[in-house]
Amino acid sequence: MQRRTMQKLKKLACIGIDLGGTNLRAALVSRAGKILDVRLSPAAELGAEAVLMELVVHCRELARCGAARGLEPVAVGLGVAGKIDAEEGSVVFSPNLPRLDGYPLGRRLAEIVQIPVYMENDANVFGLGESFTGAARGFPNWVGIVLGTGTGGCLFLNGKLWEGEGLGFSGEIGHMIVEPGGPACPCGSKGCLEAFASARALVSGARRRLCVAGTRTGPLGELEAAGRLSPESIYACAKNGDAAALELFDKMGWALGIALANLFSALGIRRAVIGGGVCGAWDLFIGSLERNLARNCSMLGPEGALVLRSRLGDEAALIGAARFGMKRSRAGESVNGTRAGE
Amino acid sequence: MQRRTMQKLKKLACIGIDLGGTNLRAALVSRAGKILDVRLSPAAELGAEAVLMELVVHCRELARCGAARGLEPVAVGLGVAGKIDAEEGSVVFSPNLPRLDGYPLGRRLAEIVQIPVYMENDANVFGLGESFTGAARGFPNWVGIVLGTGTGGCLFLNGKLWEGEGLGFSGEIGHMIVEPGGPACPCGSKGCLEAFASARALVSGARRRLCVAGTRTGPLGELEAAGRLSPESIYACAKNGDAAALELFDKMGWALGIALANLFSALGIRRAVIGGGVCGAWDLFIGSLERNLARNCSMLGPEGALVLRSRLGDEAALIGAARFGMKRSRAGESVNGTRAGE
Repeated sequence: MQRRTMQKLKKLACIGIDLGGTNLRAALVSRAGKILDVRLSPAAELGAEAVLMELVVHCRELARCGAARGLEPVAVGLGVAGKIDAEEGSVVFSPNLPRLDGYPLGRRLAEIVQIPVYMENDANVFGLGESFTGAARGFPNWVGIVLGTGTGGCLFLNGKLWEGEGLGFSGEIGHMIVEPGGPACPCGSKGCLEAFASARALVSGARRRLCVAGTRTGPLGELEAAGRLSPESIYACAKNGDAAALELFDKMGWALGIALANLFSALGIRRAVIGGGVCGAWDLFIGSLERNLARNCSMLGPEGALVLRSRLGDEAALIGAARFGMKRSRAGESVNGTRAGE
Repeated sequence: MQRRTMQKLKKLACIGIDLGGTNLRAALVSRAGKILDVRLSPAAELGAEAVLMELVVHCRELARCGAARGLEPVAVGLGVAGKIDAEEGSVVFSPNLPRLDGYPLGRRLAEIVQIPVYMENDANVFGLGESFTGAARGFPNWVGIVLGTGTGGCLFLNGKLWEGEGLGFSGEIGHMIVEPGGPACPCGSKGCLEAFASARALVSGARRRLCVAGTRTGPLGELEAAGRLSPESIYACAKNGDAAALELFDKMGWALGIALANLFSALGIRRAVIGGGVCGAWDLFIGSLERNLARNCSMLGPEGALVLRSRLGDEAALIGAARFGMKRSRAGESVNGTRAGE
């Protein structure tokens, strides 16, 4: 009896990992979706092996922290920015983490930490989090967008994460073209949503403006000259009323409005939830977004569109990754070939 | 025993109707999807009541023709270009049949002919036809596009027609924006796919070119001066090597390539079937379509995209509408409130 109770207790947790273009975060998450402990490292400069080592350290620490509370992580849910091969546990193509391309990150992690690892796109786990305990709770059909280093996306149809046709990607809303022939995107195309609506797009958009103007005067020019041009400093300029900085956020809203209008027209749906760090600038782009969404989606009637801000913030992807790992560990095979729970 | 056999025979047929921006067609279709008889009228100049009267005449004639073969139509499947209210049996908003806006076409037809009528978007019934016996047979996930007077679209996900969230539209691919601020579309937006890839777009595109050039010289100018500018005459010009006409088809392929790239990126799928009258010019736009699709869909790997031409041509929507009517009549309530089969 006591042993059965122990086992039950030991199955209540999962580790959720969010590996984005800038940071790597890992959390111990309860089955109810509560974050119990978090670890963070910078990811931007790390090679594939170094990322793996960071993950190993975090997982071991979180497992120890769980054990101290009588919890044992039954699975790791690993959200990665890019196209992934869930079966192989590897990263196929990651515009924002190019050093991981082709690397079997999930499989190697599972071999070392001896916990089943389930990989998923980082924006998809964001969506699972927002669906579970966030802004999209109760929405059967909706679009999720994550404004981070790049621009992630996910789709929920009939209450389920839409995974596409098994091509290793789906919900790549950041790589929908909103301005053909527009600014280059790390994915190789031009004029993608990501080239307007991401942390990196703010900086490259500011540089493009300075380059076209041929001068480094004005607040953005001064920041660039001082080597301090960043999403945060551009946001501060905009809050101070700088027209050039405000225009960058306006263009971000414009691009988001067009991408969402296109998705709503094509899918016959009307709801979206937007998350990611750049949502800190929500008030600077939501007006332009809503205006352009209404202007470009002629099919939507008076019921109109509904665009909400993420309720879970940074925690959405961690909670969603853990939820994903938990669900998959109940269902079947993990990337290291061991059956979950064995 | 004989009576039971008679009843069985009498349930083998359905009437499929395709009401587009230019023509209205109705067919008696066997349960296996074979067209047994067809009727056609022009629809472009008709008011709502006149359209209804044409439909009544066609349905009665087809029912008589069925009776002569021992068949009784158990339902009418009515495909209409535009946003429809299937419950009410009415047209909500039809950019290409504006005289029908708000008119209870399906309900009125059912009341008069006393056969249950099931309404659906015309591009959706095209998709049901191509799925049933056409180019999309066996495809679980695909995009359908109909290049007619306007540009219709449909989505099939997990082997089923995707109907959206019950907002009265879905698969409105023709109203995805491919060039923000581009040419005006009848829907009220600017730069929609339909403004580049439809019979009407060919004519308005040619006029725009002539207007910009400020002259009526060249083959397109001569056609316009003679009042003979039409999709067919523009096609003939292009086949004769006229650069301006060729460019219109090239732009059509460009727009289709971008719209499909965006859908494939967002949905994680890779197949499309294109139908409608403008497909007669397939060889003039498919090259540009495939080039621009590959260029703008960075996520698709070596497996690549697959874009096929409709196999059923004009018959797809008729077969699909009949199939839709047949399926719905088995399932439940029709727009005239009588239970199917009563």
